[in-house]
Amino acid sequence: LPDNKNIADMLSKNEVKYIQSLCHKKSRDEEGLFIAEGPKIINELSRSNFEIVKAYALKEWVEKNAQNTKQIIVVSPSELARISSLKTPNEIVVIARQKVINGEPVLHGNLTLLLDDIQDPGNMGTIIRIADWFGINQIVASENSVELYNQKVVQATMGSICRVNVWYKKVDEWVRNVSVPVYGALLNGQSVYETGAIGEGVLVIGNESKGISEAVLKFVSNPVTIPKFGEAESLNAAIATGIILSHFRK
Amino acid sequence: LPDNKNIADMLSKNEVKYIQSLCHKKSRDEEGLFIAEGPKIINELSRSNFEIVKAYALKEWVEKNAQNTKQIIVVSPSELARISSLKTPNEIVVIARQKVINGEPVLHGNLTLLLDDIQDPGNMGTIIRIADWFGINQIVASENSVELYNQKVVQATMGSICRVNVWYKKVDEWVRNVSVPVYGALLNGQSVYETGAIGEGVLVIGNESKGISEAVLKFVSNPVTIPKFGEAESLNAAIATGIILSHFRK
Repeated sequence: LPDNKNIADMLSKNEVKYIQSLCHKKSRDEEGLFIAEGPKIINELSRSNFEIVKAYALKEWVEKNAQNTKQIIVVSPSELARISSLKTPNEIVVIARQKVINGEPVLHGNLTLLLDDIQDPGNMGTIIRIADWFGINQIVASENSVELYNQKVVQATMGSICRVNVWYKKVDEWVRNVSVPVYGALLNGQSVYETGAIGEGVLVIGNESKGISEAVLKFVSNPVTIPKFGEAESLNAAIATGIILSHFRK
Repeated sequence: LPDNKNIADMLSKNEVKYIQSLCHKKSRDEEGLFIAEGPKIINELSRSNFEIVKAYALKEWVEKNAQNTKQIIVVSPSELARISSLKTPNEIVVIARQKVINGEPVLHGNLTLLLDDIQDPGNMGTIIRIADWFGINQIVASENSVELYNQKVVQATMGSICRVNVWYKKVDEWVRNVSVPVYGALLNGQSVYETGAIGEGVLVIGNESKGISEAVLKFVSNPVTIPKFGEAESLNAAIATGIILSHFRK
């Protein structure tokens, strides 16, 4: 392997700029690519149906992961810092191709999440990670929800982006034609302690401040509620998702 | 009320600098103060045992909240932007006094959280909000946990900082003398589906990447686990807290 001094000369200014440009949605959309970071993500992407386009890693990472070094360009720590969007760059930056999901979510026999304008990237990523934990691999998100390939979303999924499919749809039109029960996280529904195990249906999670939109709310057949024992006004959207799914899986 | 032009002249450069300095831990500690923001927080602080030192609000807020205007200085939007640490300043910035909690957590008959080096301010604030939702008002945090008065922590509590007491302690020494069951969020414990309702005990939540430290782990008498149905490697610390507490309250 070349030493770090040589490595530092390997990335052209244009290449650095190109990678940096992918932290903007417009460039991501034009190129059909996205960025993922961290020492484990490349293996998770390899095992998924995402296509890895290119990767940039520190020498140390490459030495530890010899079997995966095909498309990997060795970079210096200062180069990694330049192309990373993390405060603390984490060994490897991967460029992967955005995925076109073939087919539609299979509603019968499965739980599916419907995200109605989730705006915070951390919440979106965390919800994908929670879904993955509870064995749910189908999420339908409203067109105004935060973009799946936003770097903060990708990062917060902690690799679960590789295993959970996210469709962006006009959710009020989509939910109208759903033929399974539609559960909704609401303040006036059945207690999660009383629903019993639920293995089929759509669970609607509303926007962080506005909740579920009117257009979607009218198709919620089964409102569910997390009983409150104290004084907090509400729970964060991702926390509510985690709690409700944990009770659905009881 | 003076018009915005006059208002804009009211805060001296020194006062702006002083308020800005409170976003640094060192200044907060020296002054024994902290900053809270948003239209509801001043009422929640008033109803708590926090002391409000000063507040800076937009004219619109003051007009809507006439009864609470005693200590309030009217500021212009541009002044608010200068003293706020939010991307989108939210009507009012409050300076309040840090609290010395009298007494110790009452362990018998209560649930108490033990946070073992929670580092992320968003997680810390969200955990305080979750505790408040589930009627838990006692948290013991390790001395290396993120500071309660960090602005991101205060913000993420969404007002629950007013109702939940947080003690910073040498937790390995403290937990040694606890005479109630000590539950710990772990990967190899009893399923949360099988614990039954739990109304007394300490629940230990570990660091985001390292989990529960060795020094605390040896005092965990009852490991509890959130069963996994999919592939995610772990759950976020705040999500795990929310799920476990929801099952303890069943």
